[in-house]
Amino acid sequence: MVGYAFMGRVHSQAWRNVTAFFDLPVAPAMRVICGRSKEDTAAAARRLGWAGAATDWRELVERDDIQIIDICTPGDTHAEIAIAALAAGKHVLCEKPLANTVEEATRMAEAAAASTAKSMVAFNYRRVPAVALAQQLVAGGRLGEIRHVRAQYLQDWIVDPEFPLVWRLQKDKAGSGALGDIGAHIIDTAQFISGQQLVGVTGLTETFIKDRPGGRVTVDDAALFIGRMSGGAMASFEATRFASGRKNALRVELNGSLGSLSFDFEAMNELWVSYGGGGFERILVTEPDHPYVGAWWPPGHGLGYEHTFTHEIKDFLEAIATGADPSPSFADGLRVQRVLEAVEQSRGTYKEIPR
Amino acid sequence: MVGYAFMGRVHSQAWRNVTAFFDLPVAPAMRVICGRSKEDTAAAARRLGWAGAATDWRELVERDDIQIIDICTPGDTHAEIAIAALAAGKHVLCEKPLANTVEEATRMAEAAAASTAKSMVAFNYRRVPAVALAQQLVAGGRLGEIRHVRAQYLQDWIVDPEFPLVWRLQKDKAGSGALGDIGAHIIDTAQFISGQQLVGVTGLTETFIKDRPGGRVTVDDAALFIGRMSGGAMASFEATRFASGRKNALRVELNGSLGSLSFDFEAMNELWVSYGGGGFERILVTEPDHPYVGAWWPPGHGLGYEHTFTHEIKDFLEAIATGADPSPSFADGLRVQRVLEAVEQSRGTYKEIPR
Amino acid sequence: MVGYAFMGRVHSQAWRNVTAFFDLPVAPAMRVICGRSKEDTAAAARRLGWAGAATDWRELVERDDIQIIDICTPGDTHAEIAIAALAAGKHVLCEKPLANTVEEATRMAEAAAASTAKSMVAFNYRRVPAVALAQQLVAGGRLGEIRHVRAQYLQDWIVDPEFPLVWRLQKDKAGSGALGDIGAHIIDTAQFISGQQLVGVTGLTETFIKDRPGGRVTVDDAALFIGRMSGGAMASFEATRFASGRKNALRVELNGSLGSLSFDFEAMNELWVSYGGGGFERILVTEPDHPYVGAWWPPGHGLGYEHTFTHEIKDFLEAIATGADPSPSFADGLRVQRVLEAVEQSRGTYKEIPR
Amino acid sequence: MVGYAFMGRVHSQAWRNVTAFFDLPVAPAMRVICGRSKEDTAAAARRLGWAGAATDWRELVERDDIQIIDICTPGDTHAEIAIAALAAGKHVLCEKPLANTVEEATRMAEAAAASTAKSMVAFNYRRVPAVALAQQLVAGGRLGEIRHVRAQYLQDWIVDPEFPLVWRLQKDKAGSGALGDIGAHIIDTAQFISGQQLVGVTGLTETFIKDRPGGRVTVDDAALFIGRMSGGAMASFEATRFASGRKNALRVELNGSLGSLSFDFEAMNELWVSYGGGGFERILVTEPDHPYVGAWWPPGHGLGYEHTFTHEIKDFLEAIATGADPSPSFADGLRVQRVLEAVEQSRGTYKEIPR
Repeated sequence: MVGYAFMGRVHSQAWRNVTAFFDLPVAPAMRVICGRSKEDTAAAARRLGWAGAATDWRELVERDDIQIIDICTPGDTHAEIAIAALAAGKHVLCEKPLANTVEEATRMAEAAAASTAKSMVAFNYRRVPAVALAQQLVAGGRLGEIRHVRAQYLQDWIVDPEFPLVWRLQKDKAGSGALGDIGAHIIDTAQFISGQQLVGVTGLTETFIKDRPGGRVTVDDAALFIGRMSGGAMASFEATRFASGRKNALRVELNGSLGSLSFDFEAMNELWVSYGGGGFERILVTEPDHPYVGAWWPPGHGLGYEHTFTHEIKDFLEAIATGADPSPSFADGLRVQRVLEAVEQSRGTYKEIPR
Repeated sequence: MVGYAFMGRVHSQAWRNVTAFFDLPVAPAMRVICGRSKEDTAAAARRLGWAGAATDWRELVERDDIQIIDICTPGDTHAEIAIAALAAGKHVLCEKPLANTVEEATRMAEAAAASTAKSMVAFNYRRVPAVALAQQLVAGGRLGEIRHVRAQYLQDWIVDPEFPLVWRLQKDKAGSGALGDIGAHIIDTAQFISGQQLVGVTGLTETFIKDRPGGRVTVDDAALFIGRMSGGAMASFEATRFASGRKNALRVELNGSLGSLSFDFEAMNELWVSYGGGGFERILVTEPDHPYVGAWWPPGHGLGYEHTFTHEIKDFLEAIATGADPSPSFADGLRVQRVLEAVEQSRGTYKEIPR
Repeated sequence: MVGYAFMGRVHSQAWRNVTAFFDLPVAPAMRVICGRSKEDTAAAARRLGWAGAATDWRELVERDDIQIIDICTPGDTHAEIAIAALAAGKHVLCEKPLANTVEEATRMAEAAAASTAKSMVAFNYRRVPAVALAQQLVAGGRLGEIRHVRAQYLQDWIVDPEFPLVWRLQKDKAGSGALGDIGAHIIDTAQFISGQQLVGVTGLTETFIKDRPGGRVTVDDAALFIGRMSGGAMASFEATRFASGRKNALRVELNGSLGSLSFDFEAMNELWVSYGGGGFERILVTEPDHPYVGAWWPPGHGLGYEHTFTHEIKDFLEAIATGADPSPSFADGLRVQRVLEAVEQSRGTYKEIPR
Repeated sequence: MVGYAFMGRVHSQAWRNVTAFFDLPVAPAMRVICGRSKEDTAAAARRLGWAGAATDWRELVERDDIQIIDICTPGDTHAEIAIAALAAGKHVLCEKPLANTVEEATRMAEAAAASTAKSMVAFNYRRVPAVALAQQLVAGGRLGEIRHVRAQYLQDWIVDPEFPLVWRLQKDKAGSGALGDIGAHIIDTAQFISGQQLVGVTGLTETFIKDRPGGRVTVDDAALFIGRMSGGAMASFEATRFASGRKNALRVELNGSLGSLSFDFEAMNELWVSYGGGGFERILVTEPDHPYVGAWWPPGHGLGYEHTFTHEIKDFLEAIATGADPSPSFADGLRVQRVLEAVEQSRGTYKEIPR
């Protein structure tokens, strides 16, 4: 694993526990974690359960006893590490967004296509059981033709104008603001559930607080866009870090010719479904036959955020073992990147998304 | 009153009961109701409590014992009736949308400005107590600077492709589809609550079912648009008749620098408010000190749809009696009409809203 | 009508509007309202739409042009008025609880049985469309055998110890506290929906604030009881005026062998139903085929508290016109009274309810 | 650890991960897991992360390299194991209910009192962050004097009459049905949050399905009771396995003189609080300053069922390290047992709970 911050912690939790819950054809060994500070990385290794620590990711790529590289670093480093790892025949799990630019993402997707190793981008919200169930319902035709996709990702952690200029608010480091960070998640999640791709968008972005303690904000605070999807659905998206009182409200609503569904990650164990114009049923997605759930606890005993990563790694390991292509692929990650670029360039004018 | 269909029924209920609940400086007498069919209008008069019936609206305009004309007919007739009534010195309450075109609405607003009589457009949702309370909270600064306005009006009554071609689906009669019918409501409601006007929009419209029993659909089934508002807020709007399972979901959410609020007409007695990033409080808007509520029942005894009209007429009568200008004015109605036109013409390109 | 306070106001609203919405075989005329103060009664008559005013209820009983007496006075006067009215051949609608004692209620039920006139006790919550729908679902077997009935009526208007000693807190006037006032409603509503009668209870009552400005509180502040029902269900009831933040939370939940339902009057247009152990569906009880709803507005346009009385009076008038027995009858009211008495006398010991 | 079924799995998950999230003065080593089947226990050890496996719990008690015994077996074995472990100076964490009888629980509490080792009963719901926050709010006086405690634990896993006679439905093995299994949880949780103990109860129990495939059901399917608490609150409790559609609905509502709170484990990351009669605020209990939450993820990233056990073990280890007495103690477990016994013996007659 490369990186030991927030994403490193949560991925480690998944690696550490996946085999206690899922019967897998392969058993992962947590070999080495890599970070820039020798001391901090060693401490992280101890705490998170890794056998060793390293300070140069190239070392991991070169080691023969390592088959998988899990990239948990900021977006500007993804391309270099992933491409090198794939070239060395390592399977790669890469945090989202795939890259900071379409150019980088394109090279990564090409590297993935050229490699015999497996690669996957970590859009973890696909592995929320309620989201996976939503996808199954749509794919199974339960909602009919999808006419509307309505997705929001609402947070509020920078509402305070005195909140300082962290790296996520600087374009050279983060690439993008709310759009790339959380907008990327709703694009992937909405496309995944609906089974449709965005084909064109018109969008607006805004930076409400332009100067903060520490300097100038160079990314968007909020991004809104509407668009058309490949199956004829109309889509509406909004990503913001200024929705006071909303903490991690990844919300998706779909309306189809036969029914509708609604999801909010703040109540992640619930999926709301309506059929035939009837009322919305609150499905507690904790039944043994719900996606991923059978491995865990009895009905009504909810899961948490980190379980989405355990599911991700379970699916990734199964794909490696069986030779299947894990999903979402780097090509999927590239497609999301193209939407992000179109929104950023739109400034209120409709842009088609290149295929 | 002109018109005795849905709107005529609900306005009549308001006229019939307003004085039983509100102490007003004037007492309305329900003189005459007007419709095209003599027989049906007479029956409506009996049923709805009107003293007389007429078949020509001009008769009402000419009668000396009539001071108020309440226009409950489809949009294509509003301009003619309203302008004639105002010219005759009658106070006019006109159903929304104000007109079917900006041109008509402009003439109506001019007639209103030129008349000494009072005029008001019936955006009744302003008089939902929860909406009125929301407006008070924003106007009082409780939410700080408003950054986001997110409004949807979701219905599902034409999801079935076998639903026939009624007049509301024909452009020559209805002027517009979901956009003008229900989109108008969320534009007015969102502008009312936020205290900000839309200054520019980019929008998309769609007709999902183009042919129905009875002929070709010539209006939109759904309209989506995003925009910028006069106070710096970013706005997202969606009006559709294809949201299966949503019956009359007029939903508005605002995020400000100090707090947020959320409303859904399907639970019309509730307003959800968050301050300082805290959780959302479900305010049951049934307390005596909430707008309009003191006239009705004890706390926890909710109101219904029709009460919004009773409140509207109460405010209209008070304005007439005191010489105040009732709100929303025809000028407000015109502004909504300009937004509708901009959305319709946008086709994904940003349009500024003329002042 | 006798009485022009809270109940008088809401009953008048129902009498005034019932024929505008329901096609009835009879058309009520609002002849006379009766109260103790001549002046106030005359003002109420004007405001509420009554042709005349009287100060002695006996006058109403004696008038030939009056066929219906609607009793909206406190409980200690019900027996005398109702029995006299029935003896005079008047149909009687009587507010709940039927009486302040089992003895009075017994005499009233006997008078009703002996009369050819119709009588009905005004447990209005039966006419909430969601409650009526709940009853239909149970009666139709949709929930199977009912095993659990769980009902609460939670208010908070006397939480403040400085709230004064009003008549509702004095036993000689009110007969009972939370138990008789709101406990009576949940007993009737729960029995109505479940189709089962309470056969035995064990209960506890409490007066939290024993002295208030104005004197000693002589009724209960809260009453809790559990019991067994005629169909084998286990029941749990709680009525209190000390549930801070709950305004008029009449809540009922039923669990059956095939499904469950849940209702809360604070969201009166919603009924939550679960079948076969699935999630709870939020039915918006505003569809044309839901009980009473077809007479009102389109789907998603909710009703309010007062509509329950309009429905009550509609059913009462239909029963009178067709010769059917309106429900709930005085005998039903007596049964509720017997439960109240058993709870009051229980003090934690199981009491069977006399048939 | 003794036992490797449901509770063994979830406790193991907690032991395996606690040090990755909490800074503890001691680091637990997962030495040995014990079960009756040699093969199954060895498999469980591998899967769950235990170094060794044993088939006789006495072996664990005798080993010098073991300081803690975690008892995850059915209730009829708790007393023997716990008393032996305490006598051997081992710290003991024991699953709930503490025992199957008051007699056993009394001996266990005495053994705990006599030992220098620490002991704790695993009422894990105390460690739901929302429940811990609720307790803090009450203890801090935010709700004032508590007047009402209303608790339900609703499940539906044996609604089907064809569900077979598992050990939990047999008195000799399980001791009790819904009452001891889930009723015990709400008694502890309600007493914990309210800071009040039950002083007397009157209750009813029922077995709806008396014969099942496999034989006669000898425990209760449902238990209802009401009672009085040490601080003057009135309490209502209900535990059932027949609430169709309710999966793990541990619900608690408290009403105090200054406010109220409400919790449902099916939405375990939410706590609803009302102050001063205002609306209920939905607190998403995922903020860094909420109990236990700072160790996990950012706001809005919810926790799941298993985290309650991680918190439990964290607190237990801290108590051991610091010499504090962990809570809930065996004496607390005994008090719950006394309430269970009183309910079981009540049959509708008020019983005081012995101190």
